[in-house]
Parts: sequence; C-alpha cells; structure tokens
Amino acid sequence: MNKRLVIALGGNALGKTPAEQLELVKNTASTIVDLVEEGYDVVIGHGNGPQVGMVNLAFEYSANNGGGTPAMPFPECGAMTQGYIGYHLQQAVERELARRGIDKPCAAVVTQVVVDPADKAFQNPTKPVGMFYSKEDADRIVAETGYTFIEDAGRGYRRVVPSPIPVKIVELPVVEQLVGMHSIVITVGGGGIPVMEKGPGDYEGVAAVIDKDRASAKLALDLNADMLVILTAVDKVSINFNKPDQKDLDCMTIAEARQYIGEGHFAPGSMLPKVESCISFVENTTAGKALITSLEKAHEALQGKTGTLIVK
Amino acid sequence: MNKRLVIALGGNALGKTPAEQLELVKNTASTIVDLVEEGYDVVIGHGNGPQVGMVNLAFEYSANNGGGTPAMPFPECGAMTQGYIGYHLQQAVERELARRGIDKPCAAVVTQVVVDPADKAFQNPTKPVGMFYSKEDADRIVAETGYTFIEDAGRGYRRVVPSPIPVKIVELPVVEQLVGMHSIVITVGGGGIPVMEKGPGDYEGVAAVIDKDRASAKLALDLNADMLVILTAVDKVSINFNKPDQKDLDCMTIAEARQYIGEGHFAPGSMLPKVESCISFVENTTAGKALITSLEKAHEALQGKTGTLIVK
Repeated sequence: MNKRLVIALGGNALGKTPAEQLELVKNTASTIVDLVEEGYDVVIGHGNGPQVGMVNLAFEYSANNGGGTPAMPFPECGAMTQGYIGYHLQQAVERELARRGIDKPCAAVVTQVVVDPADKAFQNPTKPVGMFYSKEDADRIVAETGYTFIEDAGRGYRRVVPSPIPVKIVELPVVEQLVGMHSIVITVGGGGIPVMEKGPGDYEGVAAVIDKDRASAKLALDLNADMLVILTAVDKVSINFNKPDQKDLDCMTIAEARQYIGEGHFAPGSMLPKVESCISFVENTTAGKALITSLEKAHEALQGKTGTLIVK
Repeated sequence: MNKRLVIALGGNALGKTPAEQLELVKNTASTIVDLVEEGYDVVIGHGNGPQVGMVNLAFEYSANNGGGTPAMPFPECGAMTQGYIGYHLQQAVERELARRGIDKPCAAVVTQVVVDPADKAFQNPTKPVGMFYSKEDADRIVAETGYTFIEDAGRGYRRVVPSPIPVKIVELPVVEQLVGMHSIVITVGGGGIPVMEKGPGDYEGVAAVIDKDRASAKLALDLNADMLVILTAVDKVSINFNKPDQKDLDCMTIAEARQYIGEGHFAPGSMLPKVESCISFVENTTAGKALITSLEKAHEALQGKTGTLIVK
C-alpha cells in the first residue's frame, strides 16, 4: 500500500474570480503532482471562503434585485463551489499528470460533512456570508428568516453562520474506494457541505461553514493517512509571530503545540485552527504526522527541508 | 459481476428551484433504489437545463446590474450545477438506501466531457442560455465577446451555444473504479462539463451544452453497460404521436428505429435525440439493450411490463 497524504489547500491556492482561479490552480496542481511523484496517494481538501461568498452574493443579489432567480440556500451554494473548484482543480491536476507522463485518474467527489446540532457553534454564529444590508433590511430579514446578523465595522449588517466541528464525512466510503485504487481525490470542498443527520443515513443541509483544515484532519484520520499537510501563506509556524523575538519552528510535539496555544501564540481564525487540526490528527493516529507549510515549499517540506512538522 | 445499468434522468426528475428539486429528487431516488434492489450496479447521468440556466442568469444579472460578482463562464456554470444537483441527488439516494437497509455508497463525481472543435454544431449554435437582451445590448455583447445571439419570439435577444456530440468522458476511469466496487455513481451531469482537448490530457472549457441522453449513451458504451435507461415524460415511445393513429411501441429494433426516424416520427430536441442515443448504444455493444420510459414506470419497465425496449 502506498503512503497516504491528505492536503488541505488554503484560499491562496485558488482565486477570487474564475479567470484568477484557472491561473492559480496551475501552481497548485504542480505542487500536488510533485507530492504524487514522491509516491504518495494524495487526497485533497480545500477551502471555499471567497468562492462560496461569491456564489451566495450573486444569487442573493439577483433574487433581491429583480433577476428572477430563486434565493439559494447556503449549503447548496457550498455544493456549487465543490463543482466549480473541483472542476478547475481536477482539470489542472490532469493536465500536470499528463505533462509528466503519469497515468493516474483524478476527480472531485461531491461531499457532505455531518455536524452536531448540539455543537456550541450554533449558539454563536461568527462567519459572515453574503451581502451587506441596512439595519432596516437586516431587521426585516431576521424577522422573516430567523437568520443572525452582525454589524460589520460601519459597512452595514451582514448575516453570520456558525462554524461547527466536522463529525462524519458522509461520502468517505467512495473516497476510500478511490484512494484504495490510487486515484487522486478532491473532497470535503469548503470543509464539506454541512448537513445534520436526522436519522440513520438521513441528512439535511444546514447553513454553516466547516473549517477546511478541521475537515481535512478528520479526513486524514478516517483514511488512516500517513501525513496531513496543511498549506497556508507562510513556510513555517512561528511563535512570537511578528515580534522581534519571532521564532520559526521546524518541529513541535503535541505537548509543545498545546503549550504554545495556551500561551496565545496562534491567532484564532488563522494559525490556531491549523495547529489544532494537526493535533487532532496526530494524537489520534499511531504513526501519522502533520506538516504546516506554504504551497510553494510543500515539496521541500515533505523532504524535511522546511515547514513545521507536528509529531506525537 | 453485477449487471450494469446507466440511467439518464430528464428535467422532470429535478426541479426549477432548490426547494422543488429537494422534493422531486425523493421520487427520483425511490426509482433509482428500486433498480439497485433489482441487483444492478447503477450509474446516473442527468440533465441540467433549468439549473444551468438559473446559475447562468443569477451570475449574469448580478454582474451586469451592480452586484459586484464576476461574470461566470458557461462551463463553470455547468460545473456548479453538477455540485448542486449531485448534492441533492446523492442525499436523496443515500436516504432511500438507508431506509431500505441497503449498504451501498453513493456520490456525484465532477465530470468533464470532451467535444470536437470540428463538430458542425459549433457552426450552428442552437441552445438558448442566460438573459434576454435588447438588440442594442446584444449587438454590444456580440462585438465584445463574439457570442452568437438569436431573437427569441418577441421577448428579446438571447445568447445561443452549440450542442456538440460527446467524444470522451474524461473522468471515466474514476467512474469505472467506483462502479467496479458497486458504488452508485452520479456523473456526466448536464451532459458533462464541455471541454476541448488541446493536447493529451490538456482540457479547456468551452461554452456548449452536451445532450444528457447522448452523454449517458456514451457512458453506457464506455462502461460496457447491460442497459441504458432513458427516463422521460412518457411511458412509451410512440409513432404518429398525438395523432388519431398514435401507436405506442413495446419494442423496436435498431432498423425499425431508423425507419421511424426517416419517416419523421420523432421530434428533434425531444424524442429524436433519445432514440438516436439508444441506437448509438445498442448498435455498438454485443448484448446491450436500451429502454425509454417514464420515471414512474421505470421499475415495471425493467421487468418488461411497460416502456419501449430498443434492441439490435
């Protein structure tokens, strides 16, 4: 059996417009195929922040301003981004595989991820999505829909949705079949389409955003991956980040990572969920390791030359 | 090896809005799982006419009217519908499988389908997509983009895209792996995301609509399916349709089907491409058969009680 590697792609690996994304996925694909060439079975999770925002905005704007198209629920917007990003990513990976003469199938799988209705995130929605509204319009929408709105720094009122923890990857058996046959799989796009399990096998979409690093960590765990690679904007994790005594880390144990978290070294909504995702994967596997690095340095980092390795 | 069955779902199996689609896919899933219970490995192709129109319209309207979201190319709109429809369909199928105690994975695979730049359809675009424009706006867009517009019966000017023949299903190896493991696969959504092959493995999206019945026939052929089932609004194919001497057909050979086509019995854009798709599948397999019937009668038809069977 080949070694298994789950990559979590950050927003910088994709783009804000279709043209930009089509360009950016070329570099992303090049890195992915570098890792394939190292002999790994590669599974790709990816974010969808800017993209799901775009889809949600376009539908909201058209529905609210006479476009005649229906409003689009948030989980459905997420499903659309899995098709949209998956298409560009798989096309770019297929091109790069062909260029290097590697005969491996690749495809994106539409993927739902179960969240727990009792997750405390549902009591405290924090992720802004969609358009800015006036106070009057926001109040009206709240009355009509029960949505939660927050004021966003003078720019108006915006809907917020919760960011619950991923509990189960519904289409895991399909991903497992494909990885077992050495296909390259793109899955849990945008952290997965968030659903609640109302009964056995009975899923229903819910307006939420699942952190893509946490979903990828869950994926790595479920696939019994040898490594989780979280790609972000920096080559290494740092403590005392952006201070005179900033220290870039080559490696940290779970215990060290927990200590740094306790000392407040990692920003919530940025490095913190990445480090926490790595901990949740590493501590629950027997031999799995996690790596945080940049898209550009991923290949070198996998060879131990850079990046931050998280170990037991 | 189980027998393999490719189903092509028509527009009546889905819906015009997210709420309608979520409701309609329940019936669709019930029929699909009926066929799974008959012991077939089932692969599902589906249309996306109303859905890709909706996505295209929402993005076009928002981009043209101050929504601030980018214009969305037509192939990317198709990719979005694969995510959107795939999500609803797989969720409904999973629910129905669980309800009947069947343990089978199911998932939608983002799928590109290659078309030939030399296809004569590119000289004669016929499928209307997107918004209605005034003559002035249409002329301006034609000058800016090279799009083709037609006047639509007094309602204004509308872009038309070609409907070329499917040549190759790019993600076929992934579909084949999953079917081989007895998973239920949803693929070639909307006939597939139309792409051209610029070089080996180097695909690029193109504005076009591939007929979903033709794409499903190609899929059935490539998967060496035992049966292609095209679901539509009627239980059987008829000759002299809607005339006093209408005759519903239980069965027709390829030769008979060709004769009826020559006699003009089947409407272009309606029954004609379905019958042609069945012919193209049946004549190129050794033992494959094709069936045209309604969603409601599919199970009975598979047992030989209704529907129109197309044989060698």
